Amino acid sequence: MTDTKSMRPRRRFWGWGLESDELQPMEVAIVKGLMARVGLAAAELPTPPQASDFALPAPRVEPPASLADAFSSTAHDRLTHSYGKSFADAVRMWKRELPCPPDWVAFPADEQVVADILDWAGRENVAVVPYGGGTSVCGGVEPAVGGEYRAVVSLDLERLDRVIEVDRASRSARIEGGIFGPELEAQLRPHGLTLRHFPQSFQFSTLGGWIVTRSGGHYATLGTHIDEFVQSVRMVTPAGVLATRRLPGSGAGPDANRLVTGSEGVLGVVTEAWMRLQDRPRFRASGSARFGDFVAAANSVRALSQSGLNPSNCRLLDPAEAAFAGVGDGKHSLLVLGFESADHELQAWMARALELVRDFGGEYDAAAVERSMQSAVADDEGEHRKGAAGQWRDAFIRMPYWRDPMVGAGAILDTFETAITWDQFDGFYRGVREEVGAAIRRATGRPGSVSCRFTHVYPDGPAPYFTYAALGSDKGDLASSLAAWREIKLVCNDVVTRLGGTVTHHHAVGRDHRSGYEQETSSVYRDALRAAKASLDPHGVMNPGVLIDPLGRRVGITGALG
Amino acid sequence: MTDTKSMRPRRRFWGWGLESDELQPMEVAIVKGLMARVGLAAAELPTPPQASDFALPAPRVEPPASLADAFSSTAHDRLTHSYGKSFADAVRMWKRELPCPPDWVAFPADEQVVADILDWAGRENVAVVPYGGGTSVCGGVEPAVGGEYRAVVSLDLERLDRVIEVDRASRSARIEGGIFGPELEAQLRPHGLTLRHFPQSFQFSTLGGWIVTRSGGHYATLGTHIDEFVQSVRMVTPAGVLATRRLPGSGAGPDANRLVTGSEGVLGVVTEAWMRLQDRPRFRASGSARFGDFVAAANSVRALSQSGLNPSNCRLLDPAEAAFAGVGDGKHSLLVLGFESADHELQAWMARALELVRDFGGEYDAAAVERSMQSAVADDEGEHRKGAAGQWRDAFIRMPYWRDPMVGAGAILDTFETAITWDQFDGFYRGVREEVGAAIRRATGRPGSVSCRFTHVYPDGPAPYFTYAALGSDKGDLASSLAAWREIKLVCNDVVTRLGGTVTHHHAVGRDHRSGYEQETSSVYRDALRAAKASLDPHGVMNPGVLIDPLGRRVGITGALG
Repeated sequence: MTDTKSMRPRRRFWGWGLESDELQPMEVAIVKGLMARVGLAAAELPTPPQASDFALPAPRVEPPASLADAFSSTAHDRLTHSYGKSFADAVRMWKRELPCPPDWVAFPADEQVVADILDWAGRENVAVVPYGGGTSVCGGVEPAVGGEYRAVVSLDLERLDRVIEVDRASRSARIEGGIFGPELEAQLRPHGLTLRHFPQSFQFSTLGGWIVTRSGGHYATLGTHIDEFVQSVRMVTPAGVLATRRLPGSGAGPDANRLVTGSEGVLGVVTEAWMRLQDRPRFRASGSARFGDFVAAANSVRALSQSGLNPSNCRLLDPAEAAFAGVGDGKHSLLVLGFESADHELQAWMARALELVRDFGGEYDAAAVERSMQSAVADDEGEHRKGAAGQWRDAFIRMPYWRDPMVGAGAILDTFETAITWDQFDGFYRGVREEVGAAIRRATGRPGSVSCRFTHVYPDGPAPYFTYAALGSDKGDLASSLAAWREIKLVCNDVVTRLGGTVTHHHAVGRDHRSGYEQETSSVYRDALRAAKASLDPHGVMNPGVLIDPLGRRVGITGALG
Repeated sequence: MTDTKSMRPRRRFWGWGLESDELQPMEVAIVKGLMARVGLAAAELPTPPQASDFALPAPRVEPPASLADAFSSTAHDRLTHSYGKSFADAVRMWKRELPCPPDWVAFPADEQVVADILDWAGRENVAVVPYGGGTSVCGGVEPAVGGEYRAVVSLDLERLDRVIEVDRASRSARIEGGIFGPELEAQLRPHGLTLRHFPQSFQFSTLGGWIVTRSGGHYATLGTHIDEFVQSVRMVTPAGVLATRRLPGSGAGPDANRLVTGSEGVLGVVTEAWMRLQDRPRFRASGSARFGDFVAAANSVRALSQSGLNPSNCRLLDPAEAAFAGVGDGKHSLLVLGFESADHELQAWMARALELVRDFGGEYDAAAVERSMQSAVADDEGEHRKGAAGQWRDAFIRMPYWRDPMVGAGAILDTFETAITWDQFDGFYRGVREEVGAAIRRATGRPGSVSCRFTHVYPDGPAPYFTYAALGSDKGDLASSLAAWREIKLVCNDVVTRLGGTVTHHHAVGRDHRSGYEQETSSVYRDALRAAKASLDPHGVMNPGVLIDPLGRRVGITGALG
């Protein structure tokens, strides 16, 4: 007898990653160093929650006998499906606060079972929360649906985990929605193909999750979002299967794929998709440049974004971000630049890019860039592993692990990401840092840090990604931490949209970004989207409270009124 | 007193182009040569229709007094707004057949008047047909709405013709929806910017029309459709203005811009958009290559499409198409290849592209390619004007003028365009040519010609564009021509979708492509789209019969049951 129906490596229910993946001693030192920076002098890291800390109520409904095999109500499964991975999720787990666990977790083995579950849920007024890897950082997978429903089921797609079919000529593959990043890449590798979609959550997130949240990936330019790589999709909705046709392009009506991308589970469940793939890169050119002036650095990136060179990596870290990641002196900005190709050498591309870096005062190690073009291309596992860029990338992957104990000790650590046109960028950058800094001081009584990098860039503007750190409580008062976070979060939503940006570039809307989403979108459009939802989900059981669902009017932000 | 409220150069009501733009004597010879090829030995070209050939019924409603200035019911205005520019439109004009002229043509001067007209139309049950340049080739602007409406108004946006605002830093501009291609480029030129969207209809089509039909443009790769260049949009709907925010990118919900692109006037009227622009090119590299084997040529294009080189031009003409355009011997395929940049020289790009051409047996004039990179970049007016590529382009621009008298004399000349994944291409190409060839023989009793070129290419497949020519009647029996065309058209719709393609890559759905659109899309999706329409257009007055409107069930193809 096992305590889970999941067949995957056991993940922590209370935080990031695998149960087996403990912090290394060096990482414990890093975490303590980061804690000291926000004002927490902890001798010991806090003790994580255990399943026995939570008293789960009995499920309020019984699944139909024909589907019983797919359903689990074990404590471990219900706990792992109670929250996503946002700051609010982590802190509520540390607080042992769990008002809305799912009644059941369902693990359908195929598309028909998914459809049967939706049918049953519609008949029985049971809410359904589609769940991929559960890494939402905006309340997108939380089963907090309120009393209008008899019960709520978290629908975990992990068993839909195959690459079904590969079309080498068109460089595409038919892939099930529940597959995780590493397995997807492993199944494509024998064909010499790769999706090359590497969000920070790569190890713990799924293709279907990427699609419905418009996940941001590997490429700094051109294919920034997963949207660009969706050739066709199958989405099971309560009204039937919405399937689109495999096509390289079409002009026939509004693009149905683009209704699915960004739908965040409120319209249906993505069971499979044909995805556009890449040949594995054979050539690579990379380097990093330092700028004394952040505005000049941003202008250099603007020139790069408009050059038509289309670097695959073009990540600019502001001085605070570079310092925070341990790759800067707090005065210089760092630009990480890279090209890759399966087809051709990249000298001409990189040479011109470096001219644009020099034109704006950037300094770089020309010999290191030259070496990057001479050396054999390492496997993806090892890419970008050298120098400042490599150090930054290691920190990027491990940061979610480091955050958990800091949150448990009273730190507030969060990120928010946006996009803005170039003409508005300077004032936007200044305004966001000032207003969020002021909000931190108001909410916590102390200053915090706010830093920024560009994750993706477009000819018409960058996608700035902000990170902030603050002290919620140095006395372990996590209720204060959570209240302060909510106050800061609503300011973040407001300032990025009020100053012209979007409330999310690639983290989706979920519950937490709804205040900004309503600020930046037209109510006429949201009404049209609600009408489309009513057609696809006539009983309104799909992921209530997320994106546009009317229930959200009551919640607005994770758990605030839940 | 004038016979029109249009303020633009007078266009022909019965065919392509300006009234003042007569065929040159050399063109008359070309037309007679083309006629001879389909079996028409005409000594004289037929006499075009005149306005006095048509007896227009009186308008069935009166517009409100407050809006009267915007409305016209002159014969010229009603006739020019009765049809688009498809084969069926041309032949019906030559037949002097006009069952459904608009009651009125409205020329709103600003967005408020557009909104007022939609309000009035909703109250009075008057259908509204948005009209940009009127160059639809699929029945998209035809006011054939049936008896459910009291009357029908063609809503001509020509007065919304300004570039309102330019943002040089983000390379974008706010532009009104009714502006025509040449005026748009002229207003951008002083800023050193260009949209570089050059559909065949460029001279006579509008920004708003491009957006709602997902027009295909200049770039063979990457930004193939206008969709990619829409930064934000304002669409006046009967339910209010659907405005999207200026953003370089976002992940907030399903992309609202993508509901507008492809909406074909059934949801509302695009009054303005912020568009992503380009710097004017300073560097160019171009050339053409011949292939003895079309399959090898297609494979070469596949390699180019997957290379990441992203040529701006990559147009492959099959042997029949090259011969038809007067640039081939009927045995060889012709590839027209080009790169352009405002930022960098293109030697490395072209050198690698030519390797891929050589790898598949393509032959080219290396010295001519070299010269293309040395010479100063000509203005857009003169681009691609040299050699086979230039000849082809001249024919491309003038072809619509040549078609009109041929249609009047009894020829059937039409095109259809699609997209298909590479793995399916060979069988698709063979199947489409065979089945359409057979349909021509069945419908006309004689063989016709069917040829193909690629207008755009993607890493996962090409966008083949087919042209066919047949003899409808050598006795001037245009009813036979039209009946034969309808039979052939429905076969084209069926074969391209049945063999895995899309019914339209960039001509939109309108009325004529609905049979294919329903074959390739999911009814679940079309129902969702209808629900969104019901939210935006609650009285159902917007462009009835087009795309998904239920009225279309009765029509199916232009005028067939109208």
